[in-house]
Amino acid sequence: MKIITGGITSPKGFLAAGAHVGLRRKRKDLAIVYSHSPCVAAGVFTANILKAAPVVWSQKVVKSEEHVKGIIINSGQANSCTGPSGAEHCDRMVAAAAKGLGCPPAQILAASTGMIGVPIPIEKAEAGMPAVIEQLSAARESGTLAAEAIMTTDSFAKEFAVQLELGGKVITIGAMAKGSGMVHPNMATMLSFITTDAAISKELLQVALGESTGLTYNMISVDGDTSTNDMVIALANGAAGNEPIEEIQCEDFHKFFTAFHAVNEHLAKQIARDGEGATKLVEVSICGTQTAEEAQKLAKSVVSSSLVKTALFGQDANWGRILAALGRGGVWFDPGRLSMHFASKAGEVALVHCGTPLPFDTAKASAVLGENEIQISIDLNAGPSSARAWGCDLTYDYVRITGTYRV
Amino acid sequence: MKIITGGITSPKGFLAAGAHVGLRRKRKDLAIVYSHSPCVAAGVFTANILKAAPVVWSQKVVKSEEHVKGIIINSGQANSCTGPSGAEHCDRMVAAAAKGLGCPPAQILAASTGMIGVPIPIEKAEAGMPAVIEQLSAARESGTLAAEAIMTTDSFAKEFAVQLELGGKVITIGAMAKGSGMVHPNMATMLSFITTDAAISKELLQVALGESTGLTYNMISVDGDTSTNDMVIALANGAAGNEPIEEIQCEDFHKFFTAFHAVNEHLAKQIARDGEGATKLVEVSICGTQTAEEAQKLAKSVVSSSLVKTALFGQDANWGRILAALGRGGVWFDPGRLSMHFASKAGEVALVHCGTPLPFDTAKASAVLGENEIQISIDLNAGPSSARAWGCDLTYDYVRITGTYRV
Repeated sequence: MKIITGGITSPKGFLAAGAHVGLRRKRKDLAIVYSHSPCVAAGVFTANILKAAPVVWSQKVVKSEEHVKGIIINSGQANSCTGPSGAEHCDRMVAAAAKGLGCPPAQILAASTGMIGVPIPIEKAEAGMPAVIEQLSAARESGTLAAEAIMTTDSFAKEFAVQLELGGKVITIGAMAKGSGMVHPNMATMLSFITTDAAISKELLQVALGESTGLTYNMISVDGDTSTNDMVIALANGAAGNEPIEEIQCEDFHKFFTAFHAVNEHLAKQIARDGEGATKLVEVSICGTQTAEEAQKLAKSVVSSSLVKTALFGQDANWGRILAALGRGGVWFDPGRLSMHFASKAGEVALVHCGTPLPFDTAKASAVLGENEIQISIDLNAGPSSARAWGCDLTYDYVRITGTYRV
Repeated sequence: MKIITGGITSPKGFLAAGAHVGLRRKRKDLAIVYSHSPCVAAGVFTANILKAAPVVWSQKVVKSEEHVKGIIINSGQANSCTGPSGAEHCDRMVAAAAKGLGCPPAQILAASTGMIGVPIPIEKAEAGMPAVIEQLSAARESGTLAAEAIMTTDSFAKEFAVQLELGGKVITIGAMAKGSGMVHPNMATMLSFITTDAAISKELLQVALGESTGLTYNMISVDGDTSTNDMVIALANGAAGNEPIEEIQCEDFHKFFTAFHAVNEHLAKQIARDGEGATKLVEVSICGTQTAEEAQKLAKSVVSSSLVKTALFGQDANWGRILAALGRGGVWFDPGRLSMHFASKAGEVALVHCGTPLPFDTAKASAVLGENEIQISIDLNAGPSSARAWGCDLTYDYVRITGTYRV
């Protein structure tokens, strides 16, 4: 597998566009992803019981046997919690895209991100749609335009692409994502879209997406709030011409999954790094548990703790807060076997060994925590399993961005 | 029931003291509560699996059939996660108190609050203990000294007392509590101690405490972190001379519970109001659910949401964030029946009616949210049950206090 410069349009047969149609004041607000040939689609959707209208729509499309031709995504309004107009606006958005793209609405997925409770100015979306469809292209830059059009308060566009070989054929996987953000402030909506020209069955694409999401997007936390719009979609159009991947127990699926998973991990970490107001990417590694699920619960508990997050912002090696976060993680463990250390480019600091606090140099620890990528490693010495989670620090800017946008 | 000026020493037969013995630099750090006559004791303890040594000790004492004579509480160090020295230090603290008070160690409860992972300088506690015991008195001021000695970053001491009549006898209930705070920053440790001169059985005191804690201390959130030291203790010494309360189905228990519960609700709200960096007390009321447990889950989900808390700080009526927090609360409900309004001394603003967003005056809404006590009321129109939860806003000062104390 190798990383290439690219994004959503890198796989063969995928086009994209991103433009401003007037849903927001000035910034790009409409993105389209389109595949020449029909795709199998897989999706993972928010666990919030208040699902935005496009989440409900896309879930239905992914569940059906229908192939997918494209995705229409708007930023500005989340199309969530607006009453009955939500479904109508989603239908009209999909219908306008389907008409322009020349396919049935049932072949178009939809996603929205932006302010909750505010209706989409749907006439503007409908009026602007043909011009955006006109701009669809397979160029590298078109992928970037689409990645920009789905940003809200993201501070940079998130794109990634990799290539691998399967049976002599080059397979490309491209992706774009957005993280926490707002136009008017809203939820830390997370969207991610992955395209590939691999030939793979719908079932295995869903298996790969579900498995990978559990270890990547579901292991990041910016502020513990689950959006009404979260969605990860993967499309595979088979244009690479590889022998179709149809068995989970084959070498090709394994290779594909490894590359696909690397793409998701990369984007998940970018979303965590770009959390509202964040200055640091924090990776929490837990090992030595009986099961991976236990390690996941503990890692998420640490990465979600406000007190851990403010301590990291303050470069304060206050490991007691990490222990307390582990202790409320819903997993029993023996604190007498726990070891912990911090690491970054500035070095490593051991804090606890088998339950006993170690003396450490606070100036060194502060320097280690001063870097913009930090690892917190915890070994429970009680089993073979492990997990990682990613997050960010909690800063003054988080309060400013999410609290005072009207001031 | 009437509110009186007072605290932990208001009930007959209870003495208290609070003083500085050198566990902290300058501030008072040791408190003792003592009853002339033996007390029945009830307790509720942290759900964190890493329980501080005094939590483990006090749980054992409360579970035993032994009567209790007093409580020894230190601030400065949480006596948590320090390895094997924790239990030894707790034992020595209890032994020193028991010796000075002239009772067996098994009759002394213990609690600690402060930095996690740092050992108590136990010799100083032992050396200072006799002088603190010397100062024990039933005076109103002694209760305040004790309430001050358990503070960490609390900005005010939390005391409360009420009186009621049972069968012609005046019963007094007094209490003190502490909320989120740090010497060196640590967990948002919550401690609360309630004394009463009522004659009540140990079983019913525990029932009253368990029931009331579920609706008060367990319904507040400052930052979602569960401390290793949280503890609520109630002591009843029977000095009021009332007919002992021994039946749950009697009028006297009902009257006692009402007053006891009012004390706990008052202290819980004071803890929420005094959360680290907080500028507002927020009460979230949920009604119209099938069960009280559903309402509790939803209320806690809203009051714990960082995005809701920063919006309240910013006086931004961003009700979409509240809906999203409800939607991830782990309870199914029909958003089409939901109504919501905000209220404070500055007035009331209706935001959603039966699932439909209402137009509202944002300047008025901002004024309503500008007060220092805010109610968020949500009606799900689907059942007879309700619950309330309390919290505070998330502010720059939260980040400063918890993140940058060494800077």
